[in-house]
Amino acid sequence: MTKKVTIGKKILSANEQYAQRNRQLLEKLGISCLNFISSPGSGKTTLLARTITDLKGKIAFGVIEGDIETDIDAQKIRATSAPVIQINTEGACHLAASQIARGLNELPVDKLDLICIENVGNLVCPSAFELGETGKIALLSVAEGDDKPAKYPALFARAKAVLITKADFMQLEHIQFDIQRVISDIRRVNKDAPIFEVSSVTGQGMSVWYDWLIEFAKRGI
Amino acid sequence: MTKKVTIGKKILSANEQYAQRNRQLLEKLGISCLNFISSPGSGKTTLLARTITDLKGKIAFGVIEGDIETDIDAQKIRATSAPVIQINTEGACHLAASQIARGLNELPVDKLDLICIENVGNLVCPSAFELGETGKIALLSVAEGDDKPAKYPALFARAKAVLITKADFMQLEHIQFDIQRVISDIRRVNKDAPIFEVSSVTGQGMSVWYDWLIEFAKRGI
Repeated sequence: MTKKVTIGKKILSANEQYAQRNRQLLEKLGISCLNFISSPGSGKTTLLARTITDLKGKIAFGVIEGDIETDIDAQKIRATSAPVIQINTEGACHLAASQIARGLNELPVDKLDLICIENVGNLVCPSAFELGETGKIALLSVAEGDDKPAKYPALFARAKAVLITKADFMQLEHIQFDIQRVISDIRRVNKDAPIFEVSSVTGQGMSVWYDWLIEFAKRGI
Repeated sequence: MTKKVTIGKKILSANEQYAQRNRQLLEKLGISCLNFISSPGSGKTTLLARTITDLKGKIAFGVIEGDIETDIDAQKIRATSAPVIQINTEGACHLAASQIARGLNELPVDKLDLICIENVGNLVCPSAFELGETGKIALLSVAEGDDKPAKYPALFARAKAVLITKADFMQLEHIQFDIQRVISDIRRVNKDAPIFEVSSVTGQGMSVWYDWLIEFAKRGI
């Protein structure tokens, strides 16, 4: 048992070392970096693609796409003409800081204002692994249900901002989504993070998110 | 590196030992057991609650609910009056076979035909941990998008059946969900599993799923 704990600590510390190096590199370059985390299918890629397109000329984005397999997401981001690096974790349930180090090495960092990391679709594991990012962005789609911040609090506790995506679904007859419950469950673990209700399809709420993002990118690390 | 691999094997084998014991117990009792796995919010609890209610008198269900925190899901199942055991993993991203052993010990197994395990909402990790179940059921909601079987193939490869949930969302204007793409990506990794399109809200497709489930419960292990 003691042995197991020791090894565990060593692995975590190796990731922490890479995360620390990534953080130092980003500080040196003066670039902010956001780590987007959510369940599969909550709309990370669609949100990123629309955000990059709508903020063209205001923020120079670079993207690191993390997926277990395929480069489907990188292709969607590439269509915006932002530079993108695809990382395949080959079975692993989260991105590791060493993979981000590789991504930072391959991106044209001297031309960028903000790096967005799209983590593997998983509401649980990715929030436990620091990548050296400036902050984590948590996404929760209305289709997933209003009980998720209560059931999966760890990510929401660590988020710098929370995006309630597919907000247009709140209008649908079948959907029962109590936004007040969501906000109150998030506030139980996170007093400060702004909570944005957005739809990347209809555009609802996106301008408030953009204002926050522009401010965040300006402030730097 | 060698050291890490050795420890990894030991942990897996402890889980495998519990899984083996669970399997032997279920065989002795003549009860089948299904392990429901999906992303958070794809509708596992709603599907189970409706299935249990609609099949009252035909299948005697017992349920083991796995969640990181809260007993929200167990409460929903309890409303159907089926016996249910809530297990909180306290941070862990999947159920372990030792937790199922405890659940089997607490359920009134001599009165049951079929035990349904609802795993932690996570499309990645739970499929790698055997619990001693007879089979895995994979759920994918239409709201998650049609690229998920390609991006997260492991669960779909191991599934005994696949449920495409929230099938009523396919009618929505905003939703682009290519069911043929989903089926063909599942078939690439799994030749045999039946694929059911269902909606636990409208009832669409549920009777075909029920027929399969009744047959499965009858066949035993």
